[in-house]
Amino acid sequence: MQRALDLAAQGRFSAAPNPMVGCVIVQQGQIVGEGWHQRAGEPHAEVHALAAAGASAKHGTAYVTLEPCSHFGRTPPCADALIKAQVAQVVVAMQDPNPLVSGQGIARLRAAGIEVLVGVLETQARALNCGFIARMQRQRPWLRLKMAASLDGQTALANGASQWLTSSAARADVHRFRAQSSAILSTATTVLADQARLTARGEWVQQQPLRVIIDSQGKLKGDEPLFTESTATAAPILLVQGADLTTTRTWPEQVTILQLPVTNSGQIDLAELLHQLAQTYQINSVWTECGANLAGALIAAGWVDELILYLAPKLLGASAQGLFALPVWQQLAQAPTLTYRDVRQVGADLRITATINANQGDLSS
Amino acid sequence: MQRALDLAAQGRFSAAPNPMVGCVIVQQGQIVGEGWHQRAGEPHAEVHALAAAGASAKHGTAYVTLEPCSHFGRTPPCADALIKAQVAQVVVAMQDPNPLVSGQGIARLRAAGIEVLVGVLETQARALNCGFIARMQRQRPWLRLKMAASLDGQTALANGASQWLTSSAARADVHRFRAQSSAILSTATTVLADQARLTARGEWVQQQPLRVIIDSQGKLKGDEPLFTESTATAAPILLVQGADLTTTRTWPEQVTILQLPVTNSGQIDLAELLHQLAQTYQINSVWTECGANLAGALIAAGWVDELILYLAPKLLGASAQGLFALPVWQQLAQAPTLTYRDVRQVGADLRITATINANQGDLSS
Repeated sequence: MQRALDLAAQGRFSAAPNPMVGCVIVQQGQIVGEGWHQRAGEPHAEVHALAAAGASAKHGTAYVTLEPCSHFGRTPPCADALIKAQVAQVVVAMQDPNPLVSGQGIARLRAAGIEVLVGVLETQARALNCGFIARMQRQRPWLRLKMAASLDGQTALANGASQWLTSSAARADVHRFRAQSSAILSTATTVLADQARLTARGEWVQQQPLRVIIDSQGKLKGDEPLFTESTATAAPILLVQGADLTTTRTWPEQVTILQLPVTNSGQIDLAELLHQLAQTYQINSVWTECGANLAGALIAAGWVDELILYLAPKLLGASAQGLFALPVWQQLAQAPTLTYRDVRQVGADLRITATINANQGDLSS
Repeated sequence: MQRALDLAAQGRFSAAPNPMVGCVIVQQGQIVGEGWHQRAGEPHAEVHALAAAGASAKHGTAYVTLEPCSHFGRTPPCADALIKAQVAQVVVAMQDPNPLVSGQGIARLRAAGIEVLVGVLETQARALNCGFIARMQRQRPWLRLKMAASLDGQTALANGASQWLTSSAARADVHRFRAQSSAILSTATTVLADQARLTARGEWVQQQPLRVIIDSQGKLKGDEPLFTESTATAAPILLVQGADLTTTRTWPEQVTILQLPVTNSGQIDLAELLHQLAQTYQINSVWTECGANLAGALIAAGWVDELILYLAPKLLGASAQGLFALPVWQQLAQAPTLTYRDVRQVGADLRITATINANQGDLSS
């Protein structure tokens, strides 16, 4: 199953909006077929593995990281393919998280007399597809918030200077994360301040994430590098405006406008935005790069699944610009608490991955 | 030599103001004697090791982490003891850092016909005695600045609430550092805000560090827990006042008053303070626990040898209280840069050890 998970992970840059899936077929202790799902519309992992195994699949065991599908989508049901190949046993890491179909593939295999085991390396399988699971089970994408700061938690000097706080290795690491995300979420303020393109760049890129830019007040003109630079023109943009905004501007071809309600505090309704990203745009995972205001709002609302913080080996001092605009609390117990998940050095910087405790566990079962 | 360094490190809670020293005597590939220096006034490492080896030291090799002494202090010269024991070879990790005596012990051994090798595991030996070396070579102690903050670099809520930001494991870790330090440096502001005693507590404590409290304006009254609590009464206090301050207060017995010049900006002359701590009070290493103002001043002046930062898994927000009061810079290049030396989890917190780059290397040769 670990081999099947490793195969599945090869789809991290291409499988979305589908889940990453890997499959290994074993006959008398020998691997006779392997496969993984590369991209939507192409064959599923089981089909690749069965094709590789051929007649050797008969009476063998299939290890698959996600419950085989039981419905006709763009490809025929994998459960049927496993039955037809006459495998004796199917070992499944986790059920399909889609509440409408979960368990039906397993039921179909069992009805055909195949022995099915479920739950092997399930924790790892869930972590691999946290985005797909989030979209299926809570109709909201998995949200990663990326921030970069000095060791003392400052993102820029008082005058706004912030390029470059982190090392080139950390910035390449960010591009790798971007390339694994279905969407990049940012704001007009960040786009203008950094002249940001927010595309994924690097040899690992297989599909450009949807760039979701919140511009409630219509600050963007359409001539920024976001819209015009060559690597940027290929990648789609979802421009999120307040519902009350009326502009007659003509946008470049890759731009779609989404107008959303504005809350009493003058902010875009972020809950509605995240819901629409999952439901309408099939976004599994969102990579967020923004300033202290949106970052604070996302954290305070409990929508950050993972905080990924790059800490540059510099000190900017308390009069510079802080990481998160959060409410002024009276007691320490009111502050959000985190759990550190991973700490490593990336170039000269530290990269700290943490989850926010109030959010923990909502995808854990 | 690694064994000798491990032995030396056993003196970390007791050897100051002397250096930590370990010695291993080897005869035909077998260890025949070991020793380490426990505290000032007691026998040196070589004496312990020679006593353990007895006649087996003859024609053997002595590994010693610091050049054997050649002068009569409170104990006779170790170089003479090695000569008398007729060892064939002495392997020394590093020369004595005291410029007045450095090399004389080695010269005396060589003059007696003993083969001497110098520089084995020297980097480790220098790191072990960074405090002693700092006092000898630059007449200023090794200064560790300890700070604790939320992951976003805030030390307290806007209203000052900060107890307890870090875990009990991190606080125990701090006591272990205090117990290894010759002095603890803090300010009246911190003492009053935290009702701090600033003693070392825990089973590892062998001698209480000198508590050096900067109180330039005479805010302390003498009835604070610093002076009155039972564990606190045993530990000496150096109360640092402005030279212009005149008080008629009677202080508890353990208090010594040091009046120092005040700079144009109204601050105690920190350079003079650090110099006096090394020269007058034989302080090898200073453990600093203070607020953003003194921390920022020490960093800006380049006097911080190691920054030890505990990051609690919490977010307090940018409107809370920042770590360091530093000048307002116009360019990122003006900000101090660090090198990460060690990162580990202590309880629920991260502990990051970093050196400040401008300071690097001033003890490296």
